Amino acid sequence: MGPGDPELLTLKAARILGAAPVVAFFAKRGRVGHARTIAAPHLCPGVDEMRFEYPYTTEIDVDDPLYDPGIRAFYEASAAAIAARLHAGQHVALLCEGDPFFYGSAMYLFDRLHPAHPVEIVPGVTAMSGCWAQARLPMTHGDDVLTVLPGTMEAGALAARLAGTDAAVIMKVGRNMPKIRAALGAAGLVDRAVYVERGTMSGTSALPLASRPDGPAPYFSLVLIPGRQRAR
Amino acid sequence: MGPGDPELLTLKAARILGAAPVVAFFAKRGRVGHARTIAAPHLCPGVDEMRFEYPYTTEIDVDDPLYDPGIRAFYEASAAAIAARLHAGQHVALLCEGDPFFYGSAMYLFDRLHPAHPVEIVPGVTAMSGCWAQARLPMTHGDDVLTVLPGTMEAGALAARLAGTDAAVIMKVGRNMPKIRAALGAAGLVDRAVYVERGTMSGTSALPLASRPDGPAPYFSLVLIPGRQRAR
Repeated sequence: MGPGDPELLTLKAARILGAAPVVAFFAKRGRVGHARTIAAPHLCPGVDEMRFEYPYTTEIDVDDPLYDPGIRAFYEASAAAIAARLHAGQHVALLCEGDPFFYGSAMYLFDRLHPAHPVEIVPGVTAMSGCWAQARLPMTHGDDVLTVLPGTMEAGALAARLAGTDAAVIMKVGRNMPKIRAALGAAGLVDRAVYVERGTMSGTSALPLASRPDGPAPYFSLVLIPGRQRAR
Repeated sequence: MGPGDPELLTLKAARILGAAPVVAFFAKRGRVGHARTIAAPHLCPGVDEMRFEYPYTTEIDVDDPLYDPGIRAFYEASAAAIAARLHAGQHVALLCEGDPFFYGSAMYLFDRLHPAHPVEIVPGVTAMSGCWAQARLPMTHGDDVLTVLPGTMEAGALAARLAGTDAAVIMKVGRNMPKIRAALGAAGLVDRAVYVERGTMSGTSALPLASRPDGPAPYFSLVLIPGRQRAR
């Protein structure tokens, strides 16, 4: 479904949605779900919808021993529900934000379904591409190395990785923001970092990290460090 | 323009092409250009075309002292030609393969044009997303670190970077293939590596690197190392 702007859907995704008798999607409790919202204008009339509501998002920490069994049971049940439709001869389109194989929940259903069912993957525009376009920030030039880092990493490891790359994208910013800023400081990169909030969605903003007050950030935010500007 | 499959264009790119009185694009000598081929069905009748032919591709090595002045003059002239159209009040759509700010030549025109002209960047599906979808290879899970490496790097540096990441994409494979294979060997990663040729284009193929005969690869090829399969 791409990074948020409904026009950043591909022609292929739009065509498949227009022909799918069943659409499946993940959503957080009490939310319509971003993927479902983007897909809305393309769905065929009378489409059958399968809504998979995450059992928890931030209520249980990823490191809690209860997290993994709960999320595994959720993916098992979701995959089984889709498999039942496939066995009945129905095509199912599974919606995914961004690109499905780049940090996407869809991979956990792919792993369960593809051994027994034909699955086609439609690549999409990633959130990071959406963000660097929004920020008007040319990211990687010539022979730049790009490192994509989760903001959940320990500060020292984060600083070491940042020091050893040309360009970087830090995902999963949210409440990790103060730690990320400290790691960027340790790597001497605060002045090159750009903070992007809600890239390509409504209410988007991009600004130098140095001019943003410190503190937690919303879920849909990224930090970008552009590669060496090889002058040409 | 996305990774090659004409259907992997975004709705936004298609809309802009359909309204653009002028399209500009890069192409290699004697070729139509991939971007122009993908754009073809969306161009408006009578569109004015600006074809920028690279002065050289592999005839002069990047490290040759003649390379940089020649390529800079080429980008200067291309940007000046577009600027003339903009000054005349025409909108110009500049076509780019993949995503424009991810290793794209378009960045060199953006750098020259955006200080004086309004520029909008339309993000696209990258070649790497196209390749890992084609190879049906879930790439990054949970807190995986992804490193994108140019195959032009020195073998020792390449092996060191590969050893320190969860997932990796090696770009610019071509004649660097034997060196890349050696670096993957040194990092103990040959068995996890997947080779993808012409991802999403006609004649595409994906296979385990270990089962590919050693030797140079074509330009449109990548090596993918998927991240840790966090079982969920």
